[in-house]
Amino acid sequence: MGEGGVYVEFSIGIGVSARHLHLCQKDMAKLFGPGAILHIKKSISQPGQFAAEEQVTLLTEKGRMMKLRVIGPLRKETQIELSLTDARSVGLMPPIRSSGDVLGTPGGVLIGPAGQANLERGIIVAARHLHLCPETAAKYGLSDGEVVSMRTKGERETVFYNVVVRTGERHADECHIDTDEANAGGLSSGDTVIIIT
Amino acid sequence: MGEGGVYVEFSIGIGVSARHLHLCQKDMAKLFGPGAILHIKKSISQPGQFAAEEQVTLLTEKGRMMKLRVIGPLRKETQIELSLTDARSVGLMPPIRSSGDVLGTPGGVLIGPAGQANLERGIIVAARHLHLCPETAAKYGLSDGEVVSMRTKGERETVFYNVVVRTGERHADECHIDTDEANAGGLSSGDTVIIIT
Repeated sequence: MGEGGVYVEFSIGIGVSARHLHLCQKDMAKLFGPGAILHIKKSISQPGQFAAEEQVTLLTEKGRMMKLRVIGPLRKETQIELSLTDARSVGLMPPIRSSGDVLGTPGGVLIGPAGQANLERGIIVAARHLHLCPETAAKYGLSDGEVVSMRTKGERETVFYNVVVRTGERHADECHIDTDEANAGGLSSGDTVIIIT
Repeated sequence: MGEGGVYVEFSIGIGVSARHLHLCQKDMAKLFGPGAILHIKKSISQPGQFAAEEQVTLLTEKGRMMKLRVIGPLRKETQIELSLTDARSVGLMPPIRSSGDVLGTPGGVLIGPAGQANLERGIIVAARHLHLCPETAAKYGLSDGEVVSMRTKGERETVFYNVVVRTGERHADECHIDTDEANAGGLSSGDTVIIIT
């Protein structure tokens, strides 16, 4: 609920996250060799972040997922973000988590051109979330960690609840959903949705 | 809206439809040989329908989908039901349609053990729909073709709009969604949802 106990609605663009991963420095070296760095393929909406040229393979007990793209820059801990459809296709049922919350999540083996990294944990299905720059968050009375809803229009009109607000200096306005959510709602990146606080 | 202009809510179980196809007699013969019949692997919720032992491969210009299961009995026209995730993986963007409404939909090539069938049309993404037996439909004042909403609970709480009511003698109470919708809502077959008329 927004400032003053009033429900607020506003429009925002969505970004559809396909499966991807973030690497820590140590796993980067194991997969791409000592001293290897990420190469920018394309900037993405969140400031400073980019899709890298680098791709790896994820090996689980029940399957293999090729060409999993690295999103840079490097992070403190390696994290793999799959849709539930992706996860099931390699025999996994990861929990739905916010980015960075990897305690107790399943792991797997990553294979890169220079070697492999055995992960004890790090595979999540990303909770749908709303990135807001500090100005927009202030305008609508929203804080980091708060939960809002997202309403879509069209043939597959849907309201998604439990959308987690992420705000701070490194955030730009965009609502992120995964490919299952996008397909369920008939949505593509750049479509506009309504946020209900 | 239900009888007397009043909104009604009631619980119902869901069935998650994975990709599958229905075959006409002519395509059955092309794929499995003259005189071939379907063999029941498992009954499904709708009266008289069953998952068959028979599977085929779908070939499109951009990909191949193996082990697509036939749902029996045979129908007037062949129809392939994919999720948008499935469809995109073989380069297709079929429209969202109710079962049987295949005019102007994409086609492809089906390959079976005895031969192939070239389809000019028939690939759809199934519109979410609510099967109701005549007694339940009457109880809640709902008619065939009417549109209701479906509310889920849980971490991925969602309201899906535009759920089409299908009712008649050959229907049993169950709300059908595809794997994208199930995964977006964190749902499995047998879970209970709320229908809002």
